[in-house]
Amino acid sequence: MGRRTARRRIVVATAAGARTRREERIAAEEPLEIRLGSTPFTTTMRTPGDDFDLVAGFLVAEGIVSHPDDLTSMRYCAGTDEEGNQTFNVIEAGLGAGARPPASARNVVTSSACGICGTSSIDEVRKKSPYVLDPDAGRIDLGVLLGLPDTMRAKQELFGSTGGVHAAGLFSPDGELLLVREDVGRHNAVDKVVGAALREGGLPLSDSVLQVSGRASFELVQKAAMAGIPVLTAVSAPSSLAVALAEECGLTLAAFSRGASVNLYSHPDRVTGPPAAGR
Amino acid sequence: MGRRTARRRIVVATAAGARTRREERIAAEEPLEIRLGSTPFTTTMRTPGDDFDLVAGFLVAEGIVSHPDDLTSMRYCAGTDEEGNQTFNVIEAGLGAGARPPASARNVVTSSACGICGTSSIDEVRKKSPYVLDPDAGRIDLGVLLGLPDTMRAKQELFGSTGGVHAAGLFSPDGELLLVREDVGRHNAVDKVVGAALREGGLPLSDSVLQVSGRASFELVQKAAMAGIPVLTAVSAPSSLAVALAEECGLTLAAFSRGASVNLYSHPDRVTGPPAAGR
Repeated sequence: MGRRTARRRIVVATAAGARTRREERIAAEEPLEIRLGSTPFTTTMRTPGDDFDLVAGFLVAEGIVSHPDDLTSMRYCAGTDEEGNQTFNVIEAGLGAGARPPASARNVVTSSACGICGTSSIDEVRKKSPYVLDPDAGRIDLGVLLGLPDTMRAKQELFGSTGGVHAAGLFSPDGELLLVREDVGRHNAVDKVVGAALREGGLPLSDSVLQVSGRASFELVQKAAMAGIPVLTAVSAPSSLAVALAEECGLTLAAFSRGASVNLYSHPDRVTGPPAAGR
Repeated sequence: MGRRTARRRIVVATAAGARTRREERIAAEEPLEIRLGSTPFTTTMRTPGDDFDLVAGFLVAEGIVSHPDDLTSMRYCAGTDEEGNQTFNVIEAGLGAGARPPASARNVVTSSACGICGTSSIDEVRKKSPYVLDPDAGRIDLGVLLGLPDTMRAKQELFGSTGGVHAAGLFSPDGELLLVREDVGRHNAVDKVVGAALREGGLPLSDSVLQVSGRASFELVQKAAMAGIPVLTAVSAPSSLAVALAEECGLTLAAFSRGASVNLYSHPDRVTGPPAAGR
């Protein structure tokens, strides 16, 4: 696992009165500074590993790159700790002629929510996304959709050892797991998946389904839309703005996907199965 | 609940083949722009409600205010939607003479992790915090600590109706719930608690315990330390940098607090109970 986990001696205290010391594995969290050329762009707290995927995916979500040629280079640079050792916590990305560099250095949160109200933010995102989601792409059988969390869980190495990280998995509509990435930040896990796909020349991900381990926020729907992913499914709850953006973008948002059932919040027609009954 | 939740018609699809429409309540997520005077400072995605607490707590975490007098005013301003209605998504905060305004507008993530490696970040935080945590304050009986998640859960109104929000609860060392706040962002829930305390003149929270519903990240430990809270306990896992910062700050970090047992990651002596056995 290398730097993806850390070992730590802890005390386990039980209600029954036992108090024992043991060594435990903890998910690593370290800052990553992303520079465009030599100019600092943003810093994110992330679990080390798949860092180039993370940078690539982050730049996709920001609308800066959308093709492998837009990202001409990525390298670790500068950044040494007190003993002079390389920290691998600073990456310089070189942009190609087709990239759309930002007007100024700014943070994801700021740029993705710079509108004053939800409507403005949604308009902003719709303008930025280079892809239109095809209503006929990404169709997935309900039974396959319900099985994705279990398939992904079996591949969540870090979660298995630490219980402390989120995962994002990219699936084909027939349920084949194409990519899985883990991180203490769920947005980072999605960036890592999208970035890995970009680097392989796989964008837009027009006929794929993105499964996430946690909740579905506005930010995750935005990242899926920016990568051209038509279906986002989450194990836990969505937020109101996530649903509104998914509706607007033509993205199918599924959540509370718990094996026995799933809630479909927008564009449910991509999920094929028995017809809806009731009002 | 007002704007804290939204109603949405969804489709529930079950593995057994049923597909029914129903109306569901979803946790609201909207951007909040925080201005210092009339200058934009940051934008955060949050669940509306307790917004002044959120702003106050955010400014405490950033080291900008630490006393009620540092925050002379807060008011909703500007920000109208397409129909010209007030969105209540922009707040202007007025700072007093004792406040420490930032050198420039910047985002939490950027400023809290501006160091290149974990060590630099920790040094940065240690420098910023106006409080030293007393090793003898915040002592709590193990049985009381284990009961905090259940006590808080009973007060999590939004979680009860949506299943989609985090909570933070401030407790006295004898287990009395002093404050609870909810938000789609766990960092916002903590800011709301700390901000409510600041506005009541309650900082530093030297003899209190902060319970959070999710995981314990670096950022949450930082926010607790900036408010002078000596004990942070989480239902789920901590990250490596959260543990490192807690150790350095003299903060007791408990996690995986699940009723029957809890893991103590730093400064376990504040949790009183049977002595530790084993190696």
